[in-house]
Amino acid sequence: MRATFTETARDGEARCGVVTTARGTFTTPRFMPVGTRGAIVHLAADDMEALGAQVILANTYHLMLRPGTDVVEGLGGIHGMADWAGHVLTDSGGYQIFSLSPELSDEGARFKSIYDGSMHLLSPEKAAEVQAKIGADIQMVLDVCPSSVADPDIVRAAVERTGQWAERGRSAFLEHFDAKDRQCQFGIVQGGTDEKLREQSARQILDIGFDGYAVGGLSVGEDRQQMLHGLDACMSLLPSDQPRYFMGLGDPIGIVESVARGVDMFDCVLPTRLARHGTVLTDAGRYNLTRAEFATSREPLDPDWPDSPVARYSKGYLRHLLQTKEPTAPRLLTLHNVAWMLRFMDRMAESIVAGTFADFRAGVHEVWLGR
Amino acid sequence: MRATFTETARDGEARCGVVTTARGTFTTPRFMPVGTRGAIVHLAADDMEALGAQVILANTYHLMLRPGTDVVEGLGGIHGMADWAGHVLTDSGGYQIFSLSPELSDEGARFKSIYDGSMHLLSPEKAAEVQAKIGADIQMVLDVCPSSVADPDIVRAAVERTGQWAERGRSAFLEHFDAKDRQCQFGIVQGGTDEKLREQSARQILDIGFDGYAVGGLSVGEDRQQMLHGLDACMSLLPSDQPRYFMGLGDPIGIVESVARGVDMFDCVLPTRLARHGTVLTDAGRYNLTRAEFATSREPLDPDWPDSPVARYSKGYLRHLLQTKEPTAPRLLTLHNVAWMLRFMDRMAESIVAGTFADFRAGVHEVWLGR
Repeated sequence: MRATFTETARDGEARCGVVTTARGTFTTPRFMPVGTRGAIVHLAADDMEALGAQVILANTYHLMLRPGTDVVEGLGGIHGMADWAGHVLTDSGGYQIFSLSPELSDEGARFKSIYDGSMHLLSPEKAAEVQAKIGADIQMVLDVCPSSVADPDIVRAAVERTGQWAERGRSAFLEHFDAKDRQCQFGIVQGGTDEKLREQSARQILDIGFDGYAVGGLSVGEDRQQMLHGLDACMSLLPSDQPRYFMGLGDPIGIVESVARGVDMFDCVLPTRLARHGTVLTDAGRYNLTRAEFATSREPLDPDWPDSPVARYSKGYLRHLLQTKEPTAPRLLTLHNVAWMLRFMDRMAESIVAGTFADFRAGVHEVWLGR
Repeated sequence: MRATFTETARDGEARCGVVTTARGTFTTPRFMPVGTRGAIVHLAADDMEALGAQVILANTYHLMLRPGTDVVEGLGGIHGMADWAGHVLTDSGGYQIFSLSPELSDEGARFKSIYDGSMHLLSPEKAAEVQAKIGADIQMVLDVCPSSVADPDIVRAAVERTGQWAERGRSAFLEHFDAKDRQCQFGIVQGGTDEKLREQSARQILDIGFDGYAVGGLSVGEDRQQMLHGLDACMSLLPSDQPRYFMGLGDPIGIVESVARGVDMFDCVLPTRLARHGTVLTDAGRYNLTRAEFATSREPLDPDWPDSPVARYSKGYLRHLLQTKEPTAPRLLTLHNVAWMLRFMDRMAESIVAGTFADFRAGVHEVWLGR
């Protein structure tokens, strides 16, 4: 089923909307917390419901190896397995695999499992098949994801192969796996920070035609100006009646700048990973709770946010649990950070509705510049 | 304030009741989950409330070293720090310290911190002072806790010193720390499995007079018959209008046999520690979820208990999370096991009220014998 995007508000290029899939709807702009193995680290579906998470991202690479594609399918697909009735998006597995220096050919990417060293091949067809079995509402086509600061020849070759693989992945999705009535599939634009390559990649992917469009291969090492340059080069080409997704972006300035350019969806491990290292997101910026000054503080993590899901617990208590390696601490910080990200997006949406997005954007820059 | 025990039902020596302290009341027979550092591992106060935990045990030894007695006090005591409005009982610190082979003298026990190697002295007076600052509703007097299978001379010496320390600890509690209006203090009977030493210790402790009485130094290595022999030797001496507490006991047969002898309160790390190792408590006994047969199971952890707080999650999902070291798994298993223990106690109470405790006891033996 085609994912549709219905605009509900606009302020400049920034937009609010509703994405409709076979499962139902979710609102945008949307941050999707990462639940790598079918659970956000330290959380379960009841927590995601309480947080109002709407969409979770799960990792194809990890799930195909553990518990294995067939096991996920046997447990009712990702939704049945995790007992999560909200949306799930699965990445293609490509991003993780490329970090393992796979053996690359036209056929696909051959890589070694981090779990048991066994060899696996991920091809565009296989990625579509695995994701069909995992059963996420949105699957991503397999792309080639080089470093954004890679040699131009490498980026050019990646764009070529991404286009070829997109064609094969789309055909596989539409013809072979009987998933298209339940799932939709997004294409991915590559091209690093090179304007011409981004345009070329966007045109290729658009020619094939997907249910939504993602910008990949950015926020992977380049600076923010280069990142936005790469984004600008393809954004205007992406159709306005389909969702637009910036893969792997989680910093507030990056997100607000992308929304300013018309992006709808984001995912990132940042808020959950930071939580596990004791870093707390607040409206005044971020801080690390392990600092000694917090040992005796009876304040909540963010005194300006009395509705944080963990506002009843003090900095002093949470720091103590963090310092003594009690898993309660990363759990509570994860709840806080994910809730903060979702609220950050909600307030951005409110500013778009109110026509005050420019003020919101300026405020985000003021707080987060240099952090 | 003296803790009072009001009997609400009886079947043989097994009894149900209400313990009243300055904080309020809790019902017995009661299992107290262990929250070593002010949190049950993986849980927080909101979970404890949802579980209906009523009483939590916290460890004086750990809290006095991290975050430190004064920090706990500064954060509002254990209740303020953990934002837990239910009851808290703190052990004296003795049990942990004796496992570190402390330098023992009449003064107290000198030991090295596991955190930074610094030297500390725990005396009966210091234990009362530290626990007064931590602010639990029930504090335990410092005792000498040898192995239950130690040489008779060692057990005899431990009983002697336990009596002397109990006298000093009680005086300190009553005279010096201004805690007695908010807190109560339990004495501890030692004596290993020796009938005469148990009697002697019980008489010493009763002569001093405490707000409740605990049986210590059992369930630490001896077999169940020896354990019950030690328990029998002192139980009949303990007054019926005060609570009776068996320290460190968590196996179902041990608990039901102790309740059959008139014990009211229990604590143990067993249900939480087992959870972290993948072992699940059910009415049909326990099993380890890591077994391969559960990989594709869509059943809940205990198919006969649809109201388990984690019944919505399947064995297959939880096993997958356990195998991939996702902390969500030990958290959900902890919720299950603690809820199971609390429910086990509730059903024992119901059988006492109904006059069917003998059947309940026989059923527990049938399921748990040899496990």
